[in-house]
Amino acid sequence: MKKTVKIVTDSVCEMLDIKQACRFLKERDDFLILCHATPDGDTLGSAYALALGLSAMGKRCMIKCADEIPAKYDYFTKEFANNEFDYKTIVAVDIADIVLLGGLAEEFVGKIDLCIDHHISNTRYADRLYLDSEAAANCECIYDIFRHYPLPLDKVTASAIYTGLSTDTGSFKYANVTAKTHRIAADLYSYDIDAAEIGRLMFDTKSRGRLELERMVLDSAEFHFNNKCMLLVATNEMKNKTGCSDIDLEGVAVISRSVEGVLAGISIKEKQDGSFKISVRTYPPLCASDICASLGGGGHQNAAGCSFNGSLEDAKKEILKVVKKSLEENYAGTSFSK
Amino acid sequence: MKKTVKIVTDSVCEMLDIKQACRFLKERDDFLILCHATPDGDTLGSAYALALGLSAMGKRCMIKCADEIPAKYDYFTKEFANNEFDYKTIVAVDIADIVLLGGLAEEFVGKIDLCIDHHISNTRYADRLYLDSEAAANCECIYDIFRHYPLPLDKVTASAIYTGLSTDTGSFKYANVTAKTHRIAADLYSYDIDAAEIGRLMFDTKSRGRLELERMVLDSAEFHFNNKCMLLVATNEMKNKTGCSDIDLEGVAVISRSVEGVLAGISIKEKQDGSFKISVRTYPPLCASDICASLGGGGHQNAAGCSFNGSLEDAKKEILKVVKKSLEENYAGTSFSK
Repeated sequence: MKKTVKIVTDSVCEMLDIKQACRFLKERDDFLILCHATPDGDTLGSAYALALGLSAMGKRCMIKCADEIPAKYDYFTKEFANNEFDYKTIVAVDIADIVLLGGLAEEFVGKIDLCIDHHISNTRYADRLYLDSEAAANCECIYDIFRHYPLPLDKVTASAIYTGLSTDTGSFKYANVTAKTHRIAADLYSYDIDAAEIGRLMFDTKSRGRLELERMVLDSAEFHFNNKCMLLVATNEMKNKTGCSDIDLEGVAVISRSVEGVLAGISIKEKQDGSFKISVRTYPPLCASDICASLGGGGHQNAAGCSFNGSLEDAKKEILKVVKKSLEENYAGTSFSK
Repeated sequence: MKKTVKIVTDSVCEMLDIKQACRFLKERDDFLILCHATPDGDTLGSAYALALGLSAMGKRCMIKCADEIPAKYDYFTKEFANNEFDYKTIVAVDIADIVLLGGLAEEFVGKIDLCIDHHISNTRYADRLYLDSEAAANCECIYDIFRHYPLPLDKVTASAIYTGLSTDTGSFKYANVTAKTHRIAADLYSYDIDAAEIGRLMFDTKSRGRLELERMVLDSAEFHFNNKCMLLVATNEMKNKTGCSDIDLEGVAVISRSVEGVLAGISIKEKQDGSFKISVRTYPPLCASDICASLGGGGHQNAAGCSFNGSLEDAKKEILKVVKKSLEENYAGTSFSK
């Protein structure tokens, strides 16, 4: 079933409920399941659980991802024999936009038969979409499909689904968590999952390079404006010295806002082309998206970003100027010096 | 009802089931609830939830703790008016041994009417003990008491109980978590708790001093024996420079074992008297308690400790010698050099 390439904006996306999504999966076979680029625990957990579940029903499945799958997910990814065959049905999991397929985007644009997602921002690029934007992780959607289809859960599939739940919620502590997230986790425990080992692998293990990088980033810490602003820097030199890539910078923005009293956490990360990505994390009354908008960026109330072309010193100067202005507007009469 | 001081070992400890524990609480009044010294989220969550619950039933309650209660728990501790009065019933929560009362131990030895605990190692120092050693956090026991008594749950009590659950489990990722832990968390969400804010306060917020201390500790990192051993140091000088106390060293032992490939994580912490506390965290085949036993300490398979009197250099030399021996025994034929 080869389809011609369609222009995304021309396609009509049919919204499916859980019943329709399961019927679609039952009627089809020979699945190619796609993960997003720079794969995380949620897209991988979704893909491998679904592949294992459908395989158990006698259907053929294979999985593709533009980027290499980190070894820390071996405990469920290696449990699935990912053979190549002529697939007939293409399913995308946890992918809000076709461009997030990375290196696979061009090949599959207009060819996705079904997207299973939890991002409210989903761009409706697929022919069909099963969307649960209340789900903390896409693996909640996958769990619901397992229960409704029903597909058989075992230790490996439960571990994969648990991985998505836990990684997309910072181990059950982000604002996206609901009672349902915990209820699903409780149920998954009955399949003998080693949740503590998963937690250790996902949250309490880092490469030596990442540890060294973290040390360098902490060494760069500057405090400004009566300690209401913390600024961290990660340069290409630091990444090169420690053998780290941009993926290893995950979590640095969180550190920038982790110190008591800090209302604006800034992290300036040098990109391969020498330009800078500035991430801003704020607490009220400051507004990250307002701050970033001043430099041509955007985002949410508490988390936003912008790009900067120029020297590191200028990047610091520009973003600090905006933060200072925002502090002065919110704390009239207080003087904020470096 | 003043009682004379009894010698702990002379007392007979009556084991209560949940029904008996609730009946005891119903029959009594004028409660003093005791937390353990250097209070954490579980002992505080237990005490404040219980005090609020019993107060809602018209009973008088007060809470005591040998040490100051950290401000980060304000969201539930400040919601309880802790007045002084002549208490008649003394309840200890989350306290495995009378000595853990710290500065209050001498005053209350032999006087505890009821202990509510989840430590299997509980020393039976109280007249009555309600023990659930399957509970990940003592707040699971408190939740069961709320449901069985029943006591009314609201946003503040649910937040207190959630705090104990989350802090004693590293945000639901330690090996003590069970399906029940998640089911209780799911139920607590129905009381409008701000779990994300609690998670941020408990896990993603640190003092600037702690951040500086962490940086210094990371700067001390040494890798030995083909990178199978990581060694961290925290000296009094570091603590003094950063305005930190021993409490701020919480989590350093975890960092020592957090790097990929490390089988033995060592942290050497200088104590006020200039001696050293050595914490050892291992992965199989290494055994932390065996390693520490060689230096007169002890503990569990994966986590143990010992003390050392002498110079920091000698402390390093001694513990590394033992780790090397253990590695050589477990990897016959491999040579381990620094």
